[in-house]
Amino acid sequence: MNAHEVVAALIRRGETVATAESLTAGLVCAALTEVPGSSEVVRGGLVVYATDLKATLAGVDPDLLAARGAVDPEVAAQLAAGARTRCGADWGLGLTGVAGPAGQDGVSPGTVHVGLAGPAGSITRELRIPGDRAAVRAGSVAAALALLGEQTT
Amino acid sequence: MNAHEVVAALIRRGETVATAESLTAGLVCAALTEVPGSSEVVRGGLVVYATDLKATLAGVDPDLLAARGAVDPEVAAQLAAGARTRCGADWGLGLTGVAGPAGQDGVSPGTVHVGLAGPAGSITRELRIPGDRAAVRAGSVAAALALLGEQTT
Repeated sequence: MNAHEVVAALIRRGETVATAESLTAGLVCAALTEVPGSSEVVRGGLVVYATDLKATLAGVDPDLLAARGAVDPEVAAQLAAGARTRCGADWGLGLTGVAGPAGQDGVSPGTVHVGLAGPAGSITRELRIPGDRAAVRAGSVAAALALLGEQTT
Repeated sequence: MNAHEVVAALIRRGETVATAESLTAGLVCAALTEVPGSSEVVRGGLVVYATDLKATLAGVDPDLLAARGAVDPEVAAQLAAGARTRCGADWGLGLTGVAGPAGQDGVSPGTVHVGLAGPAGSITRELRIPGDRAAVRAGSVAAALALLGEQTT
């Protein structure tokens, strides 16, 4: 499922998407907007690289962040919900994880949580992506597009 | 000036950066965070692809957007200021322009405005970037990194 297919599906459905990205820092939104005409369906997004911005920009529960750290499936779900509501989109994608090379909050590089929030609720998926920082980020983008594609095509 | 050099300069200075991106849709923030250790200086960003999000997420004056359209130097300056304040960073980068292939608001593809807001005020730069959608976006990222690099290295 590539960005062209996802954008085409959203255009057919008349639905929009927004993102809240941590480790990918904008790459998912950038991938979607590579497609000419994507402005019809891509609203925008939040890059919440610093942990405090996950709460202030995307509305993730600060107590959750304090208790479990930033790399957590519920954080991914709340990022997705925050992208959806704060950017006014039908679908929200949320990504949090460890790109490496160092670990974070005791979590190993390559651990990634992707959340999708939509009209009927939310889904999260946990990934273990091998490889270096670039590979982990690229794999995360692909997983996010796949998750959205599965629900819209 | 590449992302590694900009991140290294910010680390030396103990300063942070955030972005508000339209046509690049996250690519500037993604480029900065390619660098391991960039979490020390990159706060995050806003992807304001839809025009209304430029106002609601980044704080651009809605009357300015209505009067001049989204592709305007003052919009770039206000995006930069919004990135800086809403993400709590020392430096804010704002980008607005037309990636193409179609024009927008009567503005030709390849027209891009980059704004930088910092502790001492703001700068904007207007670009005319030749080439296709990918080339315009890549040229915009390079120009944004160069502008920040000039002020910090």
